Amino acid sequence: MSATSQPQPPSPALIFDTLNAYQRTAALHAAVELDLFTAIAEGKKTPRELAARIQASEKGTRVLCDFLVIIGFLTKGGNDYDLTADSSLFLDRKSPAYLGSITEFLAKVGQETGAFNDLAAVVRKGGTVIGEEGTVSPDNPIWVNFAHTMAPLMFRPSDLIAKIIGADSGQKWKVLDIAAGHGLFGIAIAKHNPNAEIVALDWAAVLEVAKENAQKAGVANRYSTLPGSAFDVGFGSSYDVALITNFLHHFDVQTNEALLRKVHAALAPGGRAVTLEFVPNEDRVSPATEASFSMMMLGTTAHGDAYTFAEYDRMFRNTGFARSEIHELSPLPQRVIVSYK
Amino acid sequence: MSATSQPQPPSPALIFDTLNAYQRTAALHAAVELDLFTAIAEGKKTPRELAARIQASEKGTRVLCDFLVIIGFLTKGGNDYDLTADSSLFLDRKSPAYLGSITEFLAKVGQETGAFNDLAAVVRKGGTVIGEEGTVSPDNPIWVNFAHTMAPLMFRPSDLIAKIIGADSGQKWKVLDIAAGHGLFGIAIAKHNPNAEIVALDWAAVLEVAKENAQKAGVANRYSTLPGSAFDVGFGSSYDVALITNFLHHFDVQTNEALLRKVHAALAPGGRAVTLEFVPNEDRVSPATEASFSMMMLGTTAHGDAYTFAEYDRMFRNTGFARSEIHELSPLPQRVIVSYK
Repeated sequence: MSATSQPQPPSPALIFDTLNAYQRTAALHAAVELDLFTAIAEGKKTPRELAARIQASEKGTRVLCDFLVIIGFLTKGGNDYDLTADSSLFLDRKSPAYLGSITEFLAKVGQETGAFNDLAAVVRKGGTVIGEEGTVSPDNPIWVNFAHTMAPLMFRPSDLIAKIIGADSGQKWKVLDIAAGHGLFGIAIAKHNPNAEIVALDWAAVLEVAKENAQKAGVANRYSTLPGSAFDVGFGSSYDVALITNFLHHFDVQTNEALLRKVHAALAPGGRAVTLEFVPNEDRVSPATEASFSMMMLGTTAHGDAYTFAEYDRMFRNTGFARSEIHELSPLPQRVIVSYK
Repeated sequence: MSATSQPQPPSPALIFDTLNAYQRTAALHAAVELDLFTAIAEGKKTPRELAARIQASEKGTRVLCDFLVIIGFLTKGGNDYDLTADSSLFLDRKSPAYLGSITEFLAKVGQETGAFNDLAAVVRKGGTVIGEEGTVSPDNPIWVNFAHTMAPLMFRPSDLIAKIIGADSGQKWKVLDIAAGHGLFGIAIAKHNPNAEIVALDWAAVLEVAKENAQKAGVANRYSTLPGSAFDVGFGSSYDVALITNFLHHFDVQTNEALLRKVHAALAPGGRAVTLEFVPNEDRVSPATEASFSMMMLGTTAHGDAYTFAEYDRMFRNTGFARSEIHELSPLPQRVIVSYK
């Protein structure tokens, strides 16, 4: 960014760059598939060395690496490429924080479904054009894939949420994890609080992934499951905490309020609903990651959205909650809303 | 950019943003198709007003507009959207500099061909996987589309090039326009220099577009054509200027040198080859628009590339040219190389 306030002369560069932006997505997918970042972490630096390691052409490797420098995933000095701090942490397959698997889910949900192939039609309609309910149809196999692939992205948020809600205090808690997916949010609470019992709700096939993760985390003896739709299955009662993570963005306000009424009824007095969401500021255009998530929901769901805190606050008040407060996970995207019965 | 030198804490935001970058391309395509920018230029400002004008849903319109704010094409104040200076100039259909049509060509060349659907395979191979020659196959109809749709992007560069080479001096010139496409580069010289005669070379179907443009520009009486492949058709001789615009990037060095030998032979003593190209700096990663064009060539051609000035200079010296000089078109992307016989 230039510090000057002089107007820039007109340029078609942003138009050109945006019309080719799909190549950024393709380049990151290709680099992860070829395990290019891991090869660089192993000490291969030049196009020739890297090409030999990833079994690709030297020219293709050079062009891909240069492109990854331009879009911020590598650095370059002379003919040598190196990882950025973020690429080293998240894209080297040998890193414990490796996120390569999320490329698979995001490709499936956004691209392989064709959800954005005719975005003008989506804008005309006001929702997805890939079937009635888009990705939230019953037992959609995409959520098993989600549970498998997106877990790595959620380790840090799940740990942060357990801390935000004071799981370390060790109180006897009954926790409902709605649309648990990989189960990491409930599991993190069980790990922080040895007196927490977790009840995980999701499609039966998805719960197999959550149960496996609970087993790995050593909390399976305090982990039970409720298979089915969050809108239909009975929750039980007297929960201290209800986790609603990355779920409400799929639905319209009326549907969310029906769910939140059920959640309110299932909470013990003083219980809390804990919502992890893409929550843009009231201007709806910042922060960029949170705000642009409304486009993902427009393209892939019938009625979903990235709701503002004011909108969530209203949904919770309308359904009986006393008050809600918002917590940042910064520098991670997403925010946490804690709502009190 | 922050002025601080403190390291940023790790964040998956760039990975997430890049995996969704294809939505930027989709959003700009949709906005152009829906003529959203023109509606805003007409004074429609709110999602409701805009939705009524573009015959779309209010929600879809709001989400699209917010997304266009995030990626730099609109501004927002309260619920009102407005155009940026560049959007006003290039994306309002009523602007004489309207560039909306280039969205069509860039979608065709990059996306509809599927050239980037399996970029890992492209990197392995070192060139396009969509047929032997990608987009440069004989008489590929994509170039008629190119000639129709990309002309608006080339008005300013063609005018600048005419000035750079001194067309206004009015000398008697014979100009060869190789792979003329829409013809604008030769036509601009004819407009600046009333004593210039233009010979345009391209596939016969493409030349129909160039001839139409020459007619519109009032220079048809100094405009003749050579239909066929630049590699096969006889150029004739004694040219003062040979235009080679956005052509050499499609081929390997050997193929380019064969062409440049033909060009050298066709030039009069003291004649000049004038090349418009995406020419990255020697680091191959800047400027971003020029440097990232190597990815477009990797995906869509068998052997093309974004060559550096050192590489072009060598090709011209190897084929008999005395020297080459490079000119900036800044702030426009692309650069001009003038090579002297």
